[in-house]
Amino acid sequence: MSERDLGLLAPVTVGFDDPVADEAVLGALVAAEVALTRAWCTVGVAPAAAADAVSAAFGWRGAGEPCAGHGIDPAALAAAGASVGNPVIPLVGTMRERVAVEHRPWIHPAATSQDVLDSALMLVARRSAEAIDAHLVDVEATLVAIAAAHRDSVAAARTLGQHAVPTTVGLRAATWLAGVRRARRRLADAAGALPAQLGGAAGTLAASVETATRTRGPRDALAAAEALPATFAAELALATPDAPWHTTRWPVTELGDALVQAVDAAGVVAADVATLSRTEIGELAEGAPAGSSAMPHKRNPAASVLIRSAAIRAPHLAATLHTAAALAVDERPDGAWHAEWPALRELLRLALGATGTLSRLIAGLTIDDAAIARNLGATGGLIVSERVSAVLAPVLGADAVARIIARAAGGESFEGLVREAVSASGADVDIDDLLEPARYTGLAGRIVDRSLDIGVEEPS
Amino acid sequence: MSERDLGLLAPVTVGFDDPVADEAVLGALVAAEVALTRAWCTVGVAPAAAADAVSAAFGWRGAGEPCAGHGIDPAALAAAGASVGNPVIPLVGTMRERVAVEHRPWIHPAATSQDVLDSALMLVARRSAEAIDAHLVDVEATLVAIAAAHRDSVAAARTLGQHAVPTTVGLRAATWLAGVRRARRRLADAAGALPAQLGGAAGTLAASVETATRTRGPRDALAAAEALPATFAAELALATPDAPWHTTRWPVTELGDALVQAVDAAGVVAADVATLSRTEIGELAEGAPAGSSAMPHKRNPAASVLIRSAAIRAPHLAATLHTAAALAVDERPDGAWHAEWPALRELLRLALGATGTLSRLIAGLTIDDAAIARNLGATGGLIVSERVSAVLAPVLGADAVARIIARAAGGESFEGLVREAVSASGADVDIDDLLEPARYTGLAGRIVDRSLDIGVEEPS
Amino acid sequence: MSERDLGLLAPVTVGFDDPVADEAVLGALVAAEVALTRAWCTVGVAPAAAADAVSAAFGWRGAGEPCAGHGIDPAALAAAGASVGNPVIPLVGTMRERVAVEHRPWIHPAATSQDVLDSALMLVARRSAEAIDAHLVDVEATLVAIAAAHRDSVAAARTLGQHAVPTTVGLRAATWLAGVRRARRRLADAAGALPAQLGGAAGTLAASVETATRTRGPRDALAAAEALPATFAAELALATPDAPWHTTRWPVTELGDALVQAVDAAGVVAADVATLSRTEIGELAEGAPAGSSAMPHKRNPAASVLIRSAAIRAPHLAATLHTAAALAVDERPDGAWHAEWPALRELLRLALGATGTLSRLIAGLTIDDAAIARNLGATGGLIVSERVSAVLAPVLGADAVARIIARAAGGESFEGLVREAVSASGADVDIDDLLEPARYTGLAGRIVDRSLDIGVEEPS
Amino acid sequence: MSERDLGLLAPVTVGFDDPVADEAVLGALVAAEVALTRAWCTVGVAPAAAADAVSAAFGWRGAGEPCAGHGIDPAALAAAGASVGNPVIPLVGTMRERVAVEHRPWIHPAATSQDVLDSALMLVARRSAEAIDAHLVDVEATLVAIAAAHRDSVAAARTLGQHAVPTTVGLRAATWLAGVRRARRRLADAAGALPAQLGGAAGTLAASVETATRTRGPRDALAAAEALPATFAAELALATPDAPWHTTRWPVTELGDALVQAVDAAGVVAADVATLSRTEIGELAEGAPAGSSAMPHKRNPAASVLIRSAAIRAPHLAATLHTAAALAVDERPDGAWHAEWPALRELLRLALGATGTLSRLIAGLTIDDAAIARNLGATGGLIVSERVSAVLAPVLGADAVARIIARAAGGESFEGLVREAVSASGADVDIDDLLEPARYTGLAGRIVDRSLDIGVEEPS
Repeated sequence: MSERDLGLLAPVTVGFDDPVADEAVLGALVAAEVALTRAWCTVGVAPAAAADAVSAAFGWRGAGEPCAGHGIDPAALAAAGASVGNPVIPLVGTMRERVAVEHRPWIHPAATSQDVLDSALMLVARRSAEAIDAHLVDVEATLVAIAAAHRDSVAAARTLGQHAVPTTVGLRAATWLAGVRRARRRLADAAGALPAQLGGAAGTLAASVETATRTRGPRDALAAAEALPATFAAELALATPDAPWHTTRWPVTELGDALVQAVDAAGVVAADVATLSRTEIGELAEGAPAGSSAMPHKRNPAASVLIRSAAIRAPHLAATLHTAAALAVDERPDGAWHAEWPALRELLRLALGATGTLSRLIAGLTIDDAAIARNLGATGGLIVSERVSAVLAPVLGADAVARIIARAAGGESFEGLVREAVSASGADVDIDDLLEPARYTGLAGRIVDRSLDIGVEEPS
Repeated sequence: MSERDLGLLAPVTVGFDDPVADEAVLGALVAAEVALTRAWCTVGVAPAAAADAVSAAFGWRGAGEPCAGHGIDPAALAAAGASVGNPVIPLVGTMRERVAVEHRPWIHPAATSQDVLDSALMLVARRSAEAIDAHLVDVEATLVAIAAAHRDSVAAARTLGQHAVPTTVGLRAATWLAGVRRARRRLADAAGALPAQLGGAAGTLAASVETATRTRGPRDALAAAEALPATFAAELALATPDAPWHTTRWPVTELGDALVQAVDAAGVVAADVATLSRTEIGELAEGAPAGSSAMPHKRNPAASVLIRSAAIRAPHLAATLHTAAALAVDERPDGAWHAEWPALRELLRLALGATGTLSRLIAGLTIDDAAIARNLGATGGLIVSERVSAVLAPVLGADAVARIIARAAGGESFEGLVREAVSASGADVDIDDLLEPARYTGLAGRIVDRSLDIGVEEPS
Repeated sequence: MSERDLGLLAPVTVGFDDPVADEAVLGALVAAEVALTRAWCTVGVAPAAAADAVSAAFGWRGAGEPCAGHGIDPAALAAAGASVGNPVIPLVGTMRERVAVEHRPWIHPAATSQDVLDSALMLVARRSAEAIDAHLVDVEATLVAIAAAHRDSVAAARTLGQHAVPTTVGLRAATWLAGVRRARRRLADAAGALPAQLGGAAGTLAASVETATRTRGPRDALAAAEALPATFAAELALATPDAPWHTTRWPVTELGDALVQAVDAAGVVAADVATLSRTEIGELAEGAPAGSSAMPHKRNPAASVLIRSAAIRAPHLAATLHTAAALAVDERPDGAWHAEWPALRELLRLALGATGTLSRLIAGLTIDDAAIARNLGATGGLIVSERVSAVLAPVLGADAVARIIARAAGGESFEGLVREAVSASGADVDIDDLLEPARYTGLAGRIVDRSLDIGVEEPS
Repeated sequence: MSERDLGLLAPVTVGFDDPVADEAVLGALVAAEVALTRAWCTVGVAPAAAADAVSAAFGWRGAGEPCAGHGIDPAALAAAGASVGNPVIPLVGTMRERVAVEHRPWIHPAATSQDVLDSALMLVARRSAEAIDAHLVDVEATLVAIAAAHRDSVAAARTLGQHAVPTTVGLRAATWLAGVRRARRRLADAAGALPAQLGGAAGTLAASVETATRTRGPRDALAAAEALPATFAAELALATPDAPWHTTRWPVTELGDALVQAVDAAGVVAADVATLSRTEIGELAEGAPAGSSAMPHKRNPAASVLIRSAAIRAPHLAATLHTAAALAVDERPDGAWHAEWPALRELLRLALGATGTLSRLIAGLTIDDAAIARNLGATGGLIVSERVSAVLAPVLGADAVARIIARAAGGESFEGLVREAVSASGADVDIDDLLEPARYTGLAGRIVDRSLDIGVEEPS
């Protein structure tokens, strides 16, 4: 029995075609090796036949795609990699065995394991980021529709758990939307910057120069080697690195920061949904709340629960990436690099799962107008006490208003007290307007409108 | 393609018979269900035949053992569990299908998913803790031998990376030993306290009382239900819970704290080994350093690197458990509980892998006496400057001693300067003794002896 | 302007006589120095007059007390310490200046800054732990009273935010109590183990042996030096260290783990209070909820909010201590040690503030029986649907019961449907009993009783 | 005695004019209040005299500057704020008392505490970011100079602590530079996006509309209120918020992510400096290494140690901000917001201190060419074994080369073995060139050149 996680304890699942499963990682590792062979051919050092042979042998599917159909078993590779510290070393051996002798030198020439593993993980990450963005596009579209449809639905706003003043359901949706949109932008920035890695044993590409020298002579070798990283990156549809980044790990931490920001944005929605679907509140319900055979009246906010579990975990994973980045030393670190792999993968998985779950949650969200109205009235009109104070204090005096509110908080009719006091004062106040929550939503509608004007941003 | 981790990106591997793999978790889940059936029989509510039938059907192997040979597929269960939020619900369905109709009511009676999942994870944890302790027993025994063998081997002590004063190899081993021993004690405390969980829907065991009432009548039902948790715990060789702990998660956090402490202790050894095996230092070498085909002179401290990667990650995982614990709310939390599962499992795996790797590292550790001696002399005797200052300042005056040391730090012979100055002063000082590092190791030997007196503590 | 935190942004405040303020830390640092002088006298190396003079000069107040009235300015010391990396170096200079020349050698003899700083922080920690425990004793006593008074007050239990089955207010209090009690035990263990530190430059106590040799000769020097750590520890009322722990940092991490566990326990209570005092729920209210002049109807659970803010922060601080512990290297680490100081202090402050706030919160907690009863009935009897299903399924058939519950969840009268169906079936069922939530609280009362039997544990 | 941190335990100090000290925070809080008054005047609701009076009374110094000379005591305010949960409430009271009665309504009109506190913290953050960037500009300039001066200084590259292949000192500096530059860009992005906060009680600005209505009538009120946030932001030189961000906390987390990235970049330099200044390596030394009176030969890398302590802590603080962001709920969260303040401040302080310390470290960095050359030769030429293998394998056969290297690793002369074998083979190989480390630095020089071409980027 070996290490195996098949999802039994994965509360937030990624679903079909999991882009971070071992099979997908392996496809990316193979693609990185094939891309490297292809790049050597493109820069004129390796013979073109090598690119063709290696591409064909290992299921190359084009720039930015992991290889498929390569026939290499991830579990066997994992077992072989465990004893040498990373899976690239046995992978190179396996790949060389499977091609003709003349092509073997062009598999993994002048590269180090970190070049291949970093590049493959960036490929996995870029594809995961696309899937996450697709989830968030769905979320954004649905939230735009909700914000538009409920632009003027008045509801109780709550601060520190207590009813404060009125707000609107539309503004709540627009607020969620703001978090999601910002997360998308940040993720697009980070994913677009993900570079390929190519530095050789210690970031100098010395072996690449040496390799190029043998074929092209010393005069052309530097240029060929210098062209290699961009060529390699293009084959993987990754960004060209400014320089080898064996110890400058911002590509990993910026990605991690963007992923946790996406989970944060999902977490805020989930926190609100879980809260507003409480039995006593009931303003929202998930479309497919998990039932309980023993307690069939329950409408468990199961999707919110799963997203919240991701939101609790994700910050710690992103922090792991920073701890690793900050401890990088020498020309390759003595532990920090290895710490990144599982943390980055799990964080990708959490972001994939949380955003996918959010997409389903939002698509099925039920809004109970009756419950919203009932709760809005729960404080007997005190939800607009802020406005009443502001309007009546100049008329009745601040002390008189305070007494009214105190009596209302104690149980007397707020409306009755207000009408009585205003009437006694002889002031000309439109009390119906004053006590109407819908008349005290400030700029809520305009903020929603601004949000709707943006529409759904295109995937980058 | 579903979520799968087969170890491809697991830098610190657990090895054979991984006690936290999905198969092992499933065995524990099944064992928890069987134990529950057995407990109901033991307390006289269920018929004894149910215990026998269920035990036989699902590979019961005795108290504290996960079930084996139960024929349930973890991947299928994971897929089924993903849609309902946890694997227990489909597991109960599957198990009921596989037994005779009359026994079905005695599978999972009056229990909630959390009862089974918490209890199963505690079982997994307890077994993992035993495996970790076994690793640490090996480490302790080897370190005792190293400390004894090198009790008086003088070496340079370093603070902030700089040579400070002499120490001994034995004291360094004894210091590692102190961390490992404390971690063992803490882990034993935490593992010994791991309780079974049994609370029903909301921690009152109301359904258990109801179930017992139907068989035993209201008079005996309370007593039967009250006996159930201890009976259930005994079947799993877990501690009896004081009360249901659905929202008081100290069993999880105390275990997590102990696990990270074990990884910390391993991390300290790994940091020292990685440092002291640097090319320029070379005092230590791992017995099986990872080679590099391209750079065959390298003796990579591969085990230290893997342990350090675990040490970077583990604190963040233990913190995840605390975040979850601190946010528990209601009678079952809305996300915090789900956040625990993968974090606890990964932390168990890190502690298993780090301690197993440490055991191999220590067993093969090579100590290079020549390098130690060379380094000890690297500062030309200034390694004992603290002593020289203390001894000669009263004789020569503090200023004169400071001048000597400054000149020596600038390149002149420390021994020469000292001999010259003492001779000029006419003082009676045993300079050979004064400059001998072995004469300035203080209580190092006695601290080692105290450590050796303890010996290897028995596994608890 | 220098670095100053006067509490302006400290949401959870510690209150009077803050045991971790810079003044208190300085008092402990001075006490550690005085204790060291005294220890050297006790073991017969320094003259007794030194102990008297130094004790008198710096406000020594007895074992385990920080010094007071020493006249050293913390801000000035902080400024001086900033340039040399720690405050001990300038402190020693200042203290030596203030005593007669003959006593100066007995201030800080043979010690390293880490000896004094570690020992002082342990002293600060031990005293803070006592204050935390005093807070928790108050909490425990009040919770015992609440659990007793409300042993049989039936309330809705909630899981995932949804009403599940009945529980009792007493059981909820007993559950909080369980977390608090465990935290107290763990903190007592950790605080009781806090050792003094005494190792000299690199943990060998070589300078101590040398110092003792000068006074006592080589024959007695080892014994005198060996007696020193225990003597020093006794002066500070700390535990005797097994060995110097410059790089085996379990005293710090075990304390940190216990502190975060205390904050976790407070966090659980705060989460429940914040939730149950929501406007729509209203079962609990803080005795002194923070008002809002603009919205006077709000009863903000201000104490819960502050405790929750601590609960969010504390796990990250405890994790910082583990990261530092795991990275300790050499005979004194190159950064990890310095990372501990502010993290440990802030964690002590959070635990002090959170438990103190909890004590006030619990003392003033208001329980609204009417709201509890209203909420218990909010699902129209479905709160006991688990029991109804269990009892009626054998009588009416599971399908018929499921139909009843589904109709009730849809809005029909649960009681009416149940009475109708049972009546139609002719079965003999006590429906009043069946539908009474108070009849379905299982072992809640007995669990409370067991908890009450424990009473309030004495401070250790 | 109240809560006080005067820097006694602050290992990484910020220095003069600490922009996050309580005094500075208070200046920003006052500035936020004054800016709000000014904004109300600018949008034509408040009388212009109010802006003048309030600005004059509280030391307004212009857009983006904290107020000074306002005469409000931070410690008193902290004490008053502790009882009500935040310092803004007593601040408003104090400020109102200090202006003429007619201006009082224009202090804090329609605002909530969070508006002022968030805006003030953003002001503090923006100013801190400028100071951090100024530190990093210095670092960048010095690193550019180092990279240029040492472009071709050949040194041993190390991976996993072991000598690997040659690199250059210039490339090492360029690698540090890459991290610093990226951190600057990220920080500029985050700091430039920091928005003012203005939402009122629950993010609708309803009270602002109400306030504007009283002066301007209902027709113009919406426009005036809508103009307010941008006007307010301009007074603080902050970005205009898209919408209130009471629960969408990306401004805080993006800033936190950028701050930790800056600390990461500093941490990498510090890790290298601490390592390369080890006694046995000695390639680098800090210009002002901390001495040790007892061990004067030590050249403690004190600045590196302090930076590393910050690098250990910072990821945990940034993670705290994400945990808080992900748990935001309702229209203002019940604990998460309060958790941000101290974490953000401490993270700002760490970034300020770490980058300031880095600036000093880099400015004084000593590079020991002799030590570099000595270490480069430490493996007897095996530092170029990768190249030797690549060049000679085709000539001598891979097995023969492997045997040579194995014998050399065992102690024989690598150069002798190579010369002998090549000579025996009769091959035409330029052995002097082959064994020259300076001939095997690949693209190191070109990567440095590209880095130098960028020059020092202007502060944004």
